[in-house]
Amino acid sequence: MTVTRDDVQAAARRIEGRVRRTPVLQLSPTLAFKLELVQHVGSFKPRGMFNRMLSAKERGTLTGQGVVTASGGNAGLAVAYAARELGVPGRIFVPESAPPAKIARLRTLDADVVQVGSEYAEAYAAAVTASDESGALFVHAYDQPEVVAGQGTLGLELLEQADGFDTVLVAVGGGGLIAGIATAIGDRARVVGVEPELAPTMARTLEADDLIDVQVGGIAADSLGARRFGAIAFEAVKTYGVPSVLVGEDAIVAARNEFWREYRLAVEHGAAVTLAALRSGAYQPASDERVVVVVCGANTDPSTLA
Amino acid sequence: MTVTRDDVQAAARRIEGRVRRTPVLQLSPTLAFKLELVQHVGSFKPRGMFNRMLSAKERGTLTGQGVVTASGGNAGLAVAYAARELGVPGRIFVPESAPPAKIARLRTLDADVVQVGSEYAEAYAAAVTASDESGALFVHAYDQPEVVAGQGTLGLELLEQADGFDTVLVAVGGGGLIAGIATAIGDRARVVGVEPELAPTMARTLEADDLIDVQVGGIAADSLGARRFGAIAFEAVKTYGVPSVLVGEDAIVAARNEFWREYRLAVEHGAAVTLAALRSGAYQPASDERVVVVVCGANTDPSTLA
Ligand SMILES: Cc1ncc(COP(=O)(O)O)c(C=O)c1O
Ligand SMILES: Cc1ncc(COP(=O)(O)O)c(C=O)c1O
Repeated sequence: MTVTRDDVQAAARRIEGRVRRTPVLQLSPTLAFKLELVQHVGSFKPRGMFNRMLSAKERGTLTGQGVVTASGGNAGLAVAYAARELGVPGRIFVPESAPPAKIARLRTLDADVVQVGSEYAEAYAAAVTASDESGALFVHAYDQPEVVAGQGTLGLELLEQADGFDTVLVAVGGGGLIAGIATAIGDRARVVGVEPELAPTMARTLEADDLIDVQVGGIAADSLGARRFGAIAFEAVKTYGVPSVLVGEDAIVAARNEFWREYRLAVEHGAAVTLAALRSGAYQPASDERVVVVVCGANTDPSTLA
Repeated sequence: MTVTRDDVQAAARRIEGRVRRTPVLQLSPTLAFKLELVQHVGSFKPRGMFNRMLSAKERGTLTGQGVVTASGGNAGLAVAYAARELGVPGRIFVPESAPPAKIARLRTLDADVVQVGSEYAEAYAAAVTASDESGALFVHAYDQPEVVAGQGTLGLELLEQADGFDTVLVAVGGGGLIAGIATAIGDRARVVGVEPELAPTMARTLEADDLIDVQVGGIAADSLGARRFGAIAFEAVKTYGVPSVLVGEDAIVAARNEFWREYRLAVEHGAAVTLAALRSGAYQPASDERVVVVVCGANTDPSTLA
């Protein structure tokens, strides 16, 4: 299940025109933001979802049964969006506890939303079963090679756009994004993962040197709260020597406020962890180290910014 | 009082490092957004204000008395910000009716806020008097050559950034921004002004072919509600043949909602008029015409986006 740089380059060609080439805001010689929050449906996720679906289409396994996934968050939105764009049905399994606003948003993207069970794990199991029974393509939120390769296209874009940089800070949930970026650019720049202290999935996995279940919670759990790190990501972060640094809840809230106050960017908590790592000192760059902060999601209630 | 392209180029050199080089989001071969809303204090205004103040500093007329302006909006914020950055006192005159939130924001930028009179005109007169009496530098919100030249630096940036474009859509209040942009790029691209139907200052001025007072109101009046068009802008838009197209209130609201829903950009109503012109058909590009929409301000209450 190794993903290669060639896979990421193939993904970039495959999804061209389907996703936005998101711009870079160079703030100083040593700090830039990759503004991925202006991506379709407000996060980087469509990159991986389009690559998964378009690859299946090339193989002939994307049928009229469409696609199925389990996610009440950005992965679900991205699958729904990509399915609609590709003209196939999208079925999204979410726990019964999923917030009505998220369900409504998925429905505006024409997705068939199915509420199952009290936990994400039950929705996940139901999605896998539905895929097996119907022949619909199963799309994982982060742990499929085509998903990882698609997320990696963000890294290739960065190489082309930024004037030169030493380090990229990336938010980590299940690890699809960081695995893709490490694969794309891990031999050219330092890739650093950032997680909430309360959702340290990658950090605990590296400590255990094993894919274990990790307790997750906290303010960014809706996007970074994967309980189990991806197998593909596990391999990638070891190959490229990617560390995980942890940030506290207060630092996340402060960074999200700074994004709004100083840059008029409305970001979700999960996307604020990277700036939080810089501001809190959890990651301390050298004085001349050129850092890129990936700003990866904006699915947030703007009324909480005022 | 003519501003030249050389003046704009000199402004770009002068303010370098003081303002952000804001990125361009290319959405399709024919549509791009210039993301000026991530500028310091949330609008393009610091470009002009820094150029005015730094020019005065070169001449020796920026003294310990600092600067004075009249504005409860983005110009006031920009003057306060630039004054603080340059280490001089900033005094901002606003009408007594100015909203407490705006006054508080000016004060967080260390400005001395003076509330005078029931109308903007009275605050303006008081600011001019204060400048005359104290020797503080008077900074106009839009009608000074150095202010216009500074705003024009946005146009120079665009020329360097965008892959090639035919037309730029620009929101118009008193005309400082459009005058600067027309001066910078009016001989290379079509520059089109957009105003609310309820604040048609440039349109009425062109009709009358005279600098007349215009009735203004509507949802974008806080940023685009200048009652009198700038003399410099009047000359510039005639020189470069810049038209003004008008958009209705509903189109402005719809465009602002679209900015949030589709791009996760929180923009103020004044900055939404340009997209409104495209969506409403007030400006109809040819099918292959490459259009840049300047997204010029984000000083908005995000809770109204939810
Ligand atoms: C905004 C945002 N950032 C980061 C992540 C983490 O991505 P991954 O699960 O691929 O590590 C997610 C996942 O949903 C997300 O929505
Ligand atoms: C966001 C925004 N857009 C456009 C304008 C219009 O600028 P000008 O008065 O230079 O025409 C303003 C003026 O305050 C503004 O704040």
